[in-house]
Amino acid sequence: MAYELYYWPTIQGRGEFVRLALEEAGADYIDVAREAEGIAVMMRMMDHAEHPPFAPPFLKDGETIIGQTAAILLYLGARHDLAPKDPAGGLWTNQIQLTIADFVSEAHDTHHPIGVELYYEDQKEEALRRSAEFRKSRIPKFLDWFETIIARNPTDSGYLVGGTLTYVDLSLFQVVEGLLYAFPKTAKRALKASPKVSALHEAVAERPRIRAYLESPRRIPFNEEGIFRRYPELDG
Amino acid sequence: MAYELYYWPTIQGRGEFVRLALEEAGADYIDVAREAEGIAVMMRMMDHAEHPPFAPPFLKDGETIIGQTAAILLYLGARHDLAPKDPAGGLWTNQIQLTIADFVSEAHDTHHPIGVELYYEDQKEEALRRSAEFRKSRIPKFLDWFETIIARNPTDSGYLVGGTLTYVDLSLFQVVEGLLYAFPKTAKRALKASPKVSALHEAVAERPRIRAYLESPRRIPFNEEGIFRRYPELDG
Repeated sequence: MAYELYYWPTIQGRGEFVRLALEEAGADYIDVAREAEGIAVMMRMMDHAEHPPFAPPFLKDGETIIGQTAAILLYLGARHDLAPKDPAGGLWTNQIQLTIADFVSEAHDTHHPIGVELYYEDQKEEALRRSAEFRKSRIPKFLDWFETIIARNPTDSGYLVGGTLTYVDLSLFQVVEGLLYAFPKTAKRALKASPKVSALHEAVAERPRIRAYLESPRRIPFNEEGIFRRYPELDG
Repeated sequence: MAYELYYWPTIQGRGEFVRLALEEAGADYIDVAREAEGIAVMMRMMDHAEHPPFAPPFLKDGETIIGQTAAILLYLGARHDLAPKDPAGGLWTNQIQLTIADFVSEAHDTHHPIGVELYYEDQKEEALRRSAEFRKSRIPKFLDWFETIIARNPTDSGYLVGGTLTYVDLSLFQVVEGLLYAFPKTAKRALKASPKVSALHEAVAERPRIRAYLESPRRIPFNEEGIFRRYPELDG
């Protein structure tokens, strides 16, 4: 039975981390909210499920509904060889994903530092200040951490965990894609200082299934409704 | 061998979610950074570990180091009967914890909406705006979700998951404690509209091990260096 992915149909957003894992796995899935009536189905499930997700994305596998991106990837990683089989390796991969999730939330808050219920235009002054801090302190801190992890991987594979690709490599690829879209000037500088992250980003882009996905209509282009938005005034 | 918990020694912060689980489990643990030289040990581990945590808290169990609160609780929950044994139940518990983590991050950002590197006093205007949004939109939205989950728990136990206490009940207790400290007026009103969450908070406080912990010197009082800070101007 195909997985059912539920996420907003017009943005990459947090759903994209799940899409990339499903695509790399070659898994059969339906992106439900992109089908006719799909958003209504998604909203009904959030309202009525015994285990209601707080927000999209969520994944349905038979009777199991899983919300929260990191939990979805924990689930898919174990099923599709996208995470180490040993418990310690699985936990380490999960820990990296949770740190990526923190980074993604901070990237989101650069354009929404006051509240998700308000428009960007109503918090633009605050967004300018928050983005300056994000560019100066947070992007380097997170990228340095990823660079260190790749460097300390004892297999020297160029991946974050172990000798083969895991879901966190796909997620880090997506974060780099997002930074290059939203903060092109800052991100290019930061990636020069993070050669291992940069090389991993390129290696993921060249994987046959990922490349095919990125060139397909299934890949929604970045836009100014998602997490990574190009507002030139917020780049440095 | 005792667990080693690594976290800032003067605040509850995110470490408190781990402390509560260890205390309820009756687990043997050392709160390393509260011992002499403990902070230096913590910083060295963050700098040099093969799996360096991005930030405290992290837990050391023998040779395994686990960072990220939700990952630590996933690990402890399985070992100390603080989570369901079945995979679907374990994932659901993890998903709730991840949503609690999102709520905690938003609570933190009420006093740090611009950047963690800046003082509160340097982002006070923005904090006033963000807190107003948090009080108006976010506290009710999160508490409603927890209320719904308790109501839909088919065992009708009053807990979030299944018929017995799990680590997310402890974490929700801590969030309610934090809201009552940081936003006393708002939190009291919100809890009146969330009777099941309120009852769960009281039930957790009365558990023998939790009560003994809360009355012990191991429980650090709330203060204005942690996640939940009492700045009266931010309450409504």
